[in-house]
Amino acid sequence: MTNRTVFYVSDGTGITAETFGNSILAQFALRPRHVRRPFIDTVDKADKVVSEINQTAEAEGLRPIVFITLAKDEVREILKDGRCKGMVMDMFAAFVEPLEHELGMKSNHRVGRFSDAAKSQEYNERIEAINFSLAHDDGQSAKNLEAADVILVGVSRCGKTPTSLYLAMQHGIKAANYPLIPEDFERGQLPGALAPHRRKCFGLTIDPDRLCQIRNERRPGSRYAAIENCRYEVREAETMMKRAGISWLSSTHKSIEEIATTILRDIRPDRLIY
Amino acid sequence: MTNRTVFYVSDGTGITAETFGNSILAQFALRPRHVRRPFIDTVDKADKVVSEINQTAEAEGLRPIVFITLAKDEVREILKDGRCKGMVMDMFAAFVEPLEHELGMKSNHRVGRFSDAAKSQEYNERIEAINFSLAHDDGQSAKNLEAADVILVGVSRCGKTPTSLYLAMQHGIKAANYPLIPEDFERGQLPGALAPHRRKCFGLTIDPDRLCQIRNERRPGSRYAAIENCRYEVREAETMMKRAGISWLSSTHKSIEEIATTILRDIRPDRLIY
Repeated sequence: MTNRTVFYVSDGTGITAETFGNSILAQFALRPRHVRRPFIDTVDKADKVVSEINQTAEAEGLRPIVFITLAKDEVREILKDGRCKGMVMDMFAAFVEPLEHELGMKSNHRVGRFSDAAKSQEYNERIEAINFSLAHDDGQSAKNLEAADVILVGVSRCGKTPTSLYLAMQHGIKAANYPLIPEDFERGQLPGALAPHRRKCFGLTIDPDRLCQIRNERRPGSRYAAIENCRYEVREAETMMKRAGISWLSSTHKSIEEIATTILRDIRPDRLIY
Repeated sequence: MTNRTVFYVSDGTGITAETFGNSILAQFALRPRHVRRPFIDTVDKADKVVSEINQTAEAEGLRPIVFITLAKDEVREILKDGRCKGMVMDMFAAFVEPLEHELGMKSNHRVGRFSDAAKSQEYNERIEAINFSLAHDDGQSAKNLEAADVILVGVSRCGKTPTSLYLAMQHGIKAANYPLIPEDFERGQLPGALAPHRRKCFGLTIDPDRLCQIRNERRPGSRYAAIENCRYEVREAETMMKRAGISWLSSTHKSIEEIATTILRDIRPDRLIY
């Protein structure tokens, strides 16, 4: 039921407006159409967006919801001077003013939250972490595992790769990942390369039916994808992780974001403070 | 100057609270200490967080700033009933109530914004896009390029890989990337595999001095990293992209998020609407 349009209007990427607006809208039984309008940093561009909003209002017969993160007064004014026929939610107004009072300083009306950060140390660490995670995807390299912040383990296709990349990209965490494979189960032991690093290992597991489905998309009808094999691998992997004292969670009903946050909380709580 | 602690308290991952809080705080000349407290979904856990906030307030002699995204009333109450010595910024309160009025419906106080989304079609597309981007990183495969939404081109180490992965992870965009290498410059032509897909190519370039610095971290003192070579490659790549009619931008002063948003806006504006 797409019965309403939501605009995210920002002088930067609009990611903040969109993330926040989405979480507000998730509180309602509504499936709106989303429109992101980034880099709206001049009066001219703001005028165009207002026209677009007003046309949408007319076409749909409902006023669009408009989340804005605009730092420049003259640009924000265009959205707020009464011509815009959307319901404008000014995300800064609600919080910046009380903070100016609390902190005893004026806000600097800085445009975009990434600009200065782009080449900061923190940013470079994120890029380095991405490179590390790529080089250590799927057990590709056991070299330099001592530099890893986290090593994800689990059966093939349980979600290790996206989680590693997310940890690197979002949190600057050097996340290696290492598959548990039938040979490991036969030996009944964790891969040798992991032994010295057991304390930074974290396991992912998955419901065998879901695993079977995912593997069948990749290699339909294979022994690898067969439900009996999926059940065997998952059971063996869980037994092995239990024996090794590795904590784990199931990726079946969790998003990458939730898995990554749980891993941080459980094995790198220091990275939730910075 | 870390003279203030900021808490992000959420019943979900806390990513929304943190993203939003960071962009608000970027408006101030302040370098606070950040503490994220995710999955605070019971009264008990909320009590513990309030104790932590109050201890911080006492130790620092300043009240912490506390951004909250808490959907359950009884949990939110713990943060707002007066015992918490932080300055509580309730991100939902400011917007949910006016929206209830506008939409003519009650909010459902749903916890977390990812829970239901985890196994949605949109989510599966993101995972598929990540796998695609990994398989098509650095020109690894010219197979199936027709399935790509975007193909990033540029010299080695100009930022193609992190941008591709970000596009995939955040936007579900199948982003391949293809290096432009000295052999291409000698032939004076784009890599043959790209010819049929020119319209979905997007170029990245970079300041030669910055490129030299990045390459020297990887292969110190090499011809590859030498400033003359970096200048040559960047100049040739820009000439080639200009001739082929490929639009490009410089990654030198831009974050991954800004580059990705610019690419969407310029070559896949449809993906800003969903």
